[in-house]
Amino acid sequence: MKKFKNIAIAGLGLIGGSLALSIKENKLAETVTGFGRSRERIKKAFDMGIIDNFFTEFEEGLENADMVIIGTPVRTITSIAEEIIPHLQPGTILSDVGSVKTPVVRSIESTVREDVFFIGGHPIAGTENSGFEASVSTLFNNRICVLTPTEKSNPEALMRLEDFWQSVGSRVIIMDSQRHDSIFAAISHLPHMVAFSLVDAIQQMERFEKNILEYSAGGFKDFTRIAASDPVMWLDIALMNKNKIVEAIDYFESSLAKLKSSILSGDEETIKQTFETARDKRRSI
Amino acid sequence: MKKFKNIAIAGLGLIGGSLALSIKENKLAETVTGFGRSRERIKKAFDMGIIDNFFTEFEEGLENADMVIIGTPVRTITSIAEEIIPHLQPGTILSDVGSVKTPVVRSIESTVREDVFFIGGHPIAGTENSGFEASVSTLFNNRICVLTPTEKSNPEALMRLEDFWQSVGSRVIIMDSQRHDSIFAAISHLPHMVAFSLVDAIQQMERFEKNILEYSAGGFKDFTRIAASDPVMWLDIALMNKNKIVEAIDYFESSLAKLKSSILSGDEETIKQTFETARDKRRSI
Repeated sequence: MKKFKNIAIAGLGLIGGSLALSIKENKLAETVTGFGRSRERIKKAFDMGIIDNFFTEFEEGLENADMVIIGTPVRTITSIAEEIIPHLQPGTILSDVGSVKTPVVRSIESTVREDVFFIGGHPIAGTENSGFEASVSTLFNNRICVLTPTEKSNPEALMRLEDFWQSVGSRVIIMDSQRHDSIFAAISHLPHMVAFSLVDAIQQMERFEKNILEYSAGGFKDFTRIAASDPVMWLDIALMNKNKIVEAIDYFESSLAKLKSSILSGDEETIKQTFETARDKRRSI
Repeated sequence: MKKFKNIAIAGLGLIGGSLALSIKENKLAETVTGFGRSRERIKKAFDMGIIDNFFTEFEEGLENADMVIIGTPVRTITSIAEEIIPHLQPGTILSDVGSVKTPVVRSIESTVREDVFFIGGHPIAGTENSGFEASVSTLFNNRICVLTPTEKSNPEALMRLEDFWQSVGSRVIIMDSQRHDSIFAAISHLPHMVAFSLVDAIQQMERFEKNILEYSAGGFKDFTRIAASDPVMWLDIALMNKNKIVEAIDYFESSLAKLKSSILSGDEETIKQTFETARDKRRSI
């Protein structure tokens, strides 16, 4: 891979921090610069050796960057991009790591300068932990990274970005942003909404039966692990991918209603078939 | 604990097999007898050293038993009990390990002989694996075992049964069978119904997007691990605890509908509060 001179990462959370570590470990850039609003936080990341230098404002510090990756919560990506773009050198690659792609890509593409090459990205990595303190350089190893270029995207920039994600260990998949948002509404956003709702329902039931959770076995804990995910990140995702998520919830509601009605009517065949198909499907993953 | 002479286990699945191993390891009985309909299967358990001897019919083999534990799928417990009871010695303790208690307890109590002491039980243990081949003697260590005696139950038999479960490492909790069925509908049966439905919904969505699961990260796998559970066992539970499960599904449906409507209307405060409360709750487990 052609080495970058300076990669700037705007927003150092778990993904941004891990990306910085991975860039350094794989020597993908001469320097990695971190940008964060809170001087105290970004200074801590610097002190931990995650980044080589840092700034709290985009007015300075972008003159050497040949790639900028925005790692802030998904609802802020567009406005951060608008702040960053005027300060970029011609030819700079601009990307992001947001979990929702269509609104981000549409908005940035409609305002970006012709000499700055934006391509949306989404590395499928992360844990229920957040913050750069949890960063690990291996976070993207053997993970998928989705890139969502459009017909406007610069082909050379796409190749370099693809190369970059492969160099941190990821398998790059290129797809349309709408398709991305549908797929992740189904397999990631929906399970999160279900987990949050399940914990909410248990709380409603606790009104009648205190300490209900005292009796829960391992299954329930595994199941609701993702309900401990970062609320702000998920608020952003819920609002940004509203229509696709609601559509996925509709599918799920109809599956659950079907099962509930089979249970109510004692329809053994349908219940058993649902359980068997789910087991076989789950085992095939 | 006063040692049992012979403990008979009717139905050797994961729970029955693990119980047999644990009885032997903790020397809680002189011998452990296994009962199973399939000679090939029960002989295999014998050959693996899980039980000391075995029978395929209850007509023989129960004359030494001072405790019998029924470990068959929950919907068959009552009929197995009816077959067993005529062959028991006076004073024998009869129990079970079924995940639903009220219908089992009501039915057996209404038909059991006065000189046979039945008390319902439910050890909260198990994995998504099934069959005695997966048995481990430590399965009940540090787990809860719920016993559901009634005012008809023999107090001495209850004490011995409580003692027994403590001796295999469990913490015994005594409660009313109705309360048991409500609690487990909420924290165990509901999450399973949700997991089965989630996998079903994903399959519906696959019609429009093949290989959708190729993109799933660890969270989805954790979440749906329990969808790989034994379909027959869960069919039994769904039918036996129908009303409580449907009630729990109702609570969940209303929590999910509330979240969906907040997402649709973009009600940030409500969404964020739901996510935050769920996270805090989940973390407190």
